[in-house]
Amino acid sequence: MSYAPINFQQKLGMFDEQWQPKVIAEMNDYQFKIVKIEGDFVWHDHQDTDETFIVIEGNLRIDFRDGAVHVSPGEMFVVPKGVEHKPYAENEVKMLLIEPRGVPNTGHEGGERTAQNDVWI
Amino acid sequence: MSYAPINFQQKLGMFDEQWQPKVIAEMNDYQFKIVKIEGDFVWHDHQDTDETFIVIEGNLRIDFRDGAVHVSPGEMFVVPKGVEHKPYAENEVKMLLIEPRGVPNTGHEGGERTAQNDVWI
Repeated sequence: MSYAPINFQQKLGMFDEQWQPKVIAEMNDYQFKIVKIEGDFVWHDHQDTDETFIVIEGNLRIDFRDGAVHVSPGEMFVVPKGVEHKPYAENEVKMLLIEPRGVPNTGHEGGERTAQNDVWI
Repeated sequence: MSYAPINFQQKLGMFDEQWQPKVIAEMNDYQFKIVKIEGDFVWHDHQDTDETFIVIEGNLRIDFRDGAVHVSPGEMFVVPKGVEHKPYAENEVKMLLIEPRGVPNTGHEGGERTAQNDVWI
């Protein structure tokens, strides 16, 4: 049988739009999603789950109500559940998100940044 | 408050031993572990969970009973639960493993490759 790895750059090359996470793999009930972002997201939190960010390209800043973290390529950060956060990218950031299937990108905030969920690429 | 990202290379620089996964982060009840491997692992499977491999350096081969997958830096692969597999690295591979907390590296096979679980770095 033939097995193929999942290549992040190959998947990132398949779309241009920002703020639209694409699922590239699942592990149990968790999804791996790639996304391109630039500019400011909305303040939100996820009441039921932590959320993992792994940066592939660019420099990500995640703002918290009491500080911020800068995440560069080759680095990761786990935002604990229930903690308000706001991702920000001065220039485009390409990254991997890991979280349970079905988690909306804007938590329960909604708004124009809310992306369609469970879109595979 | 001060927040710090987790840097894969910085963590990998803190140890030399092979086949000893080190936990660097948790997301809910899942753990992110870095590990250095070289040579042959044992055939094993995990009856209750998928297992994710993300290669940071080197070229990983995962053998299956009916084929193999080659995973290079910037690539990932999810081994489905219950599927027998055997990681192999001709030269040292540095990689990230993601799986639920408490999963033994050799499944239920045991043996000399069985590593201590839940070791943080």
